[in-house]
Amino acid sequence: MADRLPQGFRAAGVYSGVKRNPTSLDLSLVVSDRPAVAAGVYTQNIVCGAPVKFNRDRTPCESVRAVVINSGVANACTGEQGARDAERMASKVTEVCQLDENQVLVMSTGVIGEMLPMEKINAGIVAAASQLSDGEEALIAAARGMMTTDTRHKIRSREVDLGGPVRVCGMAKGAAMIGPNMATMLAVIMTDANLNKGDAQALLADAADESFNCISVDGHTSTSDTVLLLANGAAGGPVLAGDSLAKFQATLVEVCEDLAQSIPADGEGASHLITVEVHGCKTRKDAVKIAKNISDSPLVKTAVAGNDPNWGRIVSAAGYAGIAFDPTKVCLLVNGLLLYERGAPVGFDPKVVSDSMRAEHNTSIVLLLDEGTASARFWTTDLTTEYVRLNAEYHT
Amino acid sequence: MADRLPQGFRAAGVYSGVKRNPTSLDLSLVVSDRPAVAAGVYTQNIVCGAPVKFNRDRTPCESVRAVVINSGVANACTGEQGARDAERMASKVTEVCQLDENQVLVMSTGVIGEMLPMEKINAGIVAAASQLSDGEEALIAAARGMMTTDTRHKIRSREVDLGGPVRVCGMAKGAAMIGPNMATMLAVIMTDANLNKGDAQALLADAADESFNCISVDGHTSTSDTVLLLANGAAGGPVLAGDSLAKFQATLVEVCEDLAQSIPADGEGASHLITVEVHGCKTRKDAVKIAKNISDSPLVKTAVAGNDPNWGRIVSAAGYAGIAFDPTKVCLLVNGLLLYERGAPVGFDPKVVSDSMRAEHNTSIVLLLDEGTASARFWTTDLTTEYVRLNAEYHT
Repeated sequence: MADRLPQGFRAAGVYSGVKRNPTSLDLSLVVSDRPAVAAGVYTQNIVCGAPVKFNRDRTPCESVRAVVINSGVANACTGEQGARDAERMASKVTEVCQLDENQVLVMSTGVIGEMLPMEKINAGIVAAASQLSDGEEALIAAARGMMTTDTRHKIRSREVDLGGPVRVCGMAKGAAMIGPNMATMLAVIMTDANLNKGDAQALLADAADESFNCISVDGHTSTSDTVLLLANGAAGGPVLAGDSLAKFQATLVEVCEDLAQSIPADGEGASHLITVEVHGCKTRKDAVKIAKNISDSPLVKTAVAGNDPNWGRIVSAAGYAGIAFDPTKVCLLVNGLLLYERGAPVGFDPKVVSDSMRAEHNTSIVLLLDEGTASARFWTTDLTTEYVRLNAEYHT
Repeated sequence: MADRLPQGFRAAGVYSGVKRNPTSLDLSLVVSDRPAVAAGVYTQNIVCGAPVKFNRDRTPCESVRAVVINSGVANACTGEQGARDAERMASKVTEVCQLDENQVLVMSTGVIGEMLPMEKINAGIVAAASQLSDGEEALIAAARGMMTTDTRHKIRSREVDLGGPVRVCGMAKGAAMIGPNMATMLAVIMTDANLNKGDAQALLADAADESFNCISVDGHTSTSDTVLLLANGAAGGPVLAGDSLAKFQATLVEVCEDLAQSIPADGEGASHLITVEVHGCKTRKDAVKIAKNISDSPLVKTAVAGNDPNWGRIVSAAGYAGIAFDPTKVCLLVNGLLLYERGAPVGFDPKVVSDSMRAEHNTSIVLLLDEGTASARFWTTDLTTEYVRLNAEYHT
């Protein structure tokens, strides 16, 4: 199924001149033809970008009409001027699209510490506003306009029948400086569902907890991470509740998980996408903590890069997550092959496991504990020399 | 000053055949000619080696005569047999050195999951016991017998005048799978000071908190980390108290800090030793958390590897440590050069800073906050392609 914008939404992506490469795009705009309920989840980093504060002050709310996004400059660590520039971006969109005040949200991503080149940004906004369209090309252009080190644009969408068709469509960016605790990336999720403000916020927070908060490339929480949900009700029908709301929630979670996975799948220098599942914990929070610890360990990540079924590193990574568990009950499977059972290694053929790791881009790590029934799933990348090379290169 | 064993201590290091390379050493023994007060701090990893449990059950105590250490096999994740093997190692030393029961502590480091080749270990213990000596060569051999991926043995010592000379001499190993929270490495610190048991434990825990708990190579907490302090009173004089105890404590901290630093300084693949200082926090605990976050960030570590004065990565790493602070008051210096002041970058010549980073093995990162007067210092390494290469290599 091709990705389509939900009803009532239009999008555009243009090149404003902020990025050096004129074949890239660096300014995106999405506009709803009617006010939308908007909810957001934001980075927990104390050092956060000006747009994050701007959006945080305005969500959740019931009357957002547009989101403007620029890439190339993050507008972070930019002091008072940065705050004013975020406001100016919103004002420009307000003016050009003839909206009311406080109907625009803002996102920026890119280099930290540089000021936004406002002339270029404004010109980009004007150009984008003139190119708004509900077609797939426009959606793709908008997804491209958000990119920084991504190698591909990221769009995921679903349709669900809630009496009539309801569409959920998300676009995201992020390939490094990725770490959870709502410090994951930029994403805008649009839907024509009819939601009330409180539900939108609650559903987004829950969906983010199972998706964007469960990914990591290098565990470093950025200054600017944001996920916005816009629900404009254009699909018609009453405000969702009961079963319909539950079905919508499930669809939202699917879109978020798909989008979230696409990020480590495109991780800088990554040669494997790693899915870490932890089962049998007392609470989901425990399971997430253990999964994250495994996912963040450079020793686990380099082992995967080397196609090494190194159960010792994985099990010891679980052991310092700060969660109590009985180590004699632990089982571990890599790519479905049992390596470790009841606290001790089993006799397995390392070559078989290693070959399976080498053959697949996707590596599955499943850790089974015996403390309860809660589980969590986490996505990350391996750690390669390419990642180091990309991030150690110093550009004057 | 040459490193010398404290009075009453002898040491030995031999090749027992556990490691593949016959020019290496893999079995160490230190013996005190009289019972010593012994204290230990151990890994917090739930998945811990058999010797860790063995030692934990026996310290602090007042009558340790020996520590036996093998390298090459960690005796971790080895179940019941591993526990028995740790006991057997202790029994062999007891027999050969004619000690009483429960006077021997045990350490093992190396590959996880393999059983100890007890015949070789026992033969090594016999050989070591016959070579015990108080000379510097014997001390060096003992320090070498602990090594795994270290490129050099690590010994640090101090002498302090407490009415008469008192010596503190430590040997340590560790080069990767290093992460604090008492999950740092193996170290044995010997002294001829006269300490009571409670003071020994308290002083060691405090000294470890300022040293071994403040180092990181890759943040991965190992299964086997242990620091032991043996105080045998051979220097004579009454049990230390008051000013003498305070002076001894300061000396112990110096030895521990020196030893601790030597570990990241020898970090696998490292091209820089990074000292991260955080000042101006409400509590030392806050300062340590922030310093650790900066030290563990792959983005900060790759930046240092690339001689990149990337203040954005450093400041944002501080921002997600989970500690509240006013970002508009933050200052940052790298190698003594001011890059960031009151929450914004200053105009600095990046080439000057980059050149200074390239020229020095030691990189200094100093972050100044304005929340209080507490501070902490943390040592780590940069992240290089060499580290990845070393840890991604799969050996069948």
